[in-house]
Amino acid sequence: MGVHLGPALVAGFRFSGVSAGLKHQAGAKDLGLIVADAPAAATAVFSANRIKAAPVYVTMETIRAGRLQAVVANSGCANSFTGKAGLKLAHESCAITAREIGCSPELVVPSSTGVIGHLFDIGKFGAGVREAASRLRDDGMEDFARAIMTTDTHPKIASTAIRMGGASVTIAGVAKGAGMISPKMATMLAYLVTDAAVSASQLKVALRAALPRSFNAITIDGDMSTNDMVILMASGAAGSRSLSRKDLDAFNRGIAEVSATLACELVRDGEGATKLVTVEVRGAKSPRDAERCARQIANSPLVKTAFFGCDPNVGRILMAAGSSGAMVESDRLRLWIAGIKVASRGSLLVDSLPQAAEKMREQEFTVTLDLKLGKSSATILTCDLSYDYVKINAEYTT
Amino acid sequence: MGVHLGPALVAGFRFSGVSAGLKHQAGAKDLGLIVADAPAAATAVFSANRIKAAPVYVTMETIRAGRLQAVVANSGCANSFTGKAGLKLAHESCAITAREIGCSPELVVPSSTGVIGHLFDIGKFGAGVREAASRLRDDGMEDFARAIMTTDTHPKIASTAIRMGGASVTIAGVAKGAGMISPKMATMLAYLVTDAAVSASQLKVALRAALPRSFNAITIDGDMSTNDMVILMASGAAGSRSLSRKDLDAFNRGIAEVSATLACELVRDGEGATKLVTVEVRGAKSPRDAERCARQIANSPLVKTAFFGCDPNVGRILMAAGSSGAMVESDRLRLWIAGIKVASRGSLLVDSLPQAAEKMREQEFTVTLDLKLGKSSATILTCDLSYDYVKINAEYTT
Repeated sequence: MGVHLGPALVAGFRFSGVSAGLKHQAGAKDLGLIVADAPAAATAVFSANRIKAAPVYVTMETIRAGRLQAVVANSGCANSFTGKAGLKLAHESCAITAREIGCSPELVVPSSTGVIGHLFDIGKFGAGVREAASRLRDDGMEDFARAIMTTDTHPKIASTAIRMGGASVTIAGVAKGAGMISPKMATMLAYLVTDAAVSASQLKVALRAALPRSFNAITIDGDMSTNDMVILMASGAAGSRSLSRKDLDAFNRGIAEVSATLACELVRDGEGATKLVTVEVRGAKSPRDAERCARQIANSPLVKTAFFGCDPNVGRILMAAGSSGAMVESDRLRLWIAGIKVASRGSLLVDSLPQAAEKMREQEFTVTLDLKLGKSSATILTCDLSYDYVKINAEYTT
Repeated sequence: MGVHLGPALVAGFRFSGVSAGLKHQAGAKDLGLIVADAPAAATAVFSANRIKAAPVYVTMETIRAGRLQAVVANSGCANSFTGKAGLKLAHESCAITAREIGCSPELVVPSSTGVIGHLFDIGKFGAGVREAASRLRDDGMEDFARAIMTTDTHPKIASTAIRMGGASVTIAGVAKGAGMISPKMATMLAYLVTDAAVSASQLKVALRAALPRSFNAITIDGDMSTNDMVILMASGAAGSRSLSRKDLDAFNRGIAEVSATLACELVRDGEGATKLVTVEVRGAKSPRDAERCARQIANSPLVKTAFFGCDPNVGRILMAAGSSGAMVESDRLRLWIAGIKVASRGSLLVDSLPQAAEKMREQEFTVTLDLKLGKSSATILTCDLSYDYVKINAEYTT
């Protein structure tokens, strides 16, 4: 099994993406549909932000039944911090979609991304849904992926095929970044679809198992969105005999691998990012220590600007580790940057710094901090902090 | 009483700052002395970072006696993450200083700031101390302030005069920034001196009382240094009768005001900063909620880039508030940017945004978030995140 960076056909699902005029850029795709031929088993996870967008509230409610037939997603407007008017709009967008594709509104969920605090034009939205419904195709996944992009520079799609219950099953996913990324219990918008014949509760198990090493293990800027959500739907169209424990393990692995690939793509395309850095903390006293130490390093602006400058700045990494609240003893720790050991037992290995600086020129590298205090470890994917991050975010206005 | 941004004469203290060749820039001042005519009452607070620099450990030990005669401070090298060799070097630097000024080494404390992981040249250091000792002057405070600068663009000095115990008393302070600033129990290097006749324990009370609204209420990049420390010394040279409660209140107020002024100057000169922003959270359910909500807003890269872009981006401020862990209800909150109300009870006040954007062009403004959930409040000073922050920190190498 391998994960492919690109779309796949998933039996029982069709997709589309059109321009409804919700984004400022004329002609840019900004409204997408995922439609199942029949009600599909479904599960989802959501932003832990106390301020959640209207479509998040609506989806949280609808998904309880464990069944979905359609997702209507838009970019250009987050429909967040929009009060009762926003909730009404989210419900209306589901009703319109249900009408166009011929199903109950209780089987449709909305997703929105874009600027916070504004409502979108329901007239434009409705016309967009009509067009999107007429363009649904089994190979429309890339159009959908483009319709949910904001500051992403390219669409993010991953897929894999596995054998389970005697059938060939496909798992595919679409996600968008590219800022306000530091999920805790969920992430930015991501949609996973499969033709596996699995139940909503089996999907739930698979998705929750995949999170810690995928969407919950990334950070771009340490800022958590109000609109984060991951939706997972299964059509069952691939058919299969009753599933064994081994089949479900293979399925869970497939979901985890597609999720991890998409999460990695989100960071690789982080706002202004020029480097993908894996921060690995080992030998921590507790899992909580490992996690907060890795996150503090991965979120430190001083560490991230040093990554951008290809500067093996050991001091900044240790500063972040030491301020994370985790137990750290400088006399014991070891630190590697891009595979080069740069600190050991309280000493900087000065002679190895030029080699580390050279290796940091690569687009991807790993920082490994071994605290030598216990057995816990954590890994967080992050990116560098560049001029373009500032440019994108100083110029992207309300 | 008013605080003056600049040096003052403080009876019983002399200062100097010289170039010892510890910084890369030829001729830049990098070694400074503060010397009291006789042992002075003293107290200090220190970085909460788990990794502390050698001079921090030495100062923590020495200050226990509550008496100091000299501070020897250097920039260009932090003497942090330098193990036993670093501790030996810190002790040596005190011994050299004690010899030059003729006091016991137990009355001297070292401070270092600069790059982490390296030792400085003790030969150069010793020669610098000799020169600095020969140049001690009662009006040498500005030379000292220049000697501790790293990425600061100008020296930071504040002073005030008060009446207490029948005498005129001066309080003056010197501090340095300008990055890795997010103190919790202390801050970057700051030195306060006074000629008041107060004890070490009275100094301790005054300094701890001043912290929450000065050095502990600021952030530049959310990164906490390994070298943070604030030292407060009193010569008693002003003379005074026995002190009343009212005298001590006046003294504590003076310490608090000089501390707050210096803290504000640190943020104003934050790395790459073009704006000084006061983030005020009111109506929080608990003091902890107010504090974490204000800090999350003040540290958010998305909020700080919006400040830089003069963008009244309500969504990002609410995103940060919502992800802080504090109780937030979007239907209740009110938000003002630069004095303009931009959100109220779950709605963005779209018409007021152009006016807020206009006001954000000023170099200083306040963001006020009233959560309307309780009576607790917190204030954090922060700055914007600009291209120059990235430039300074991508190019400042180990």
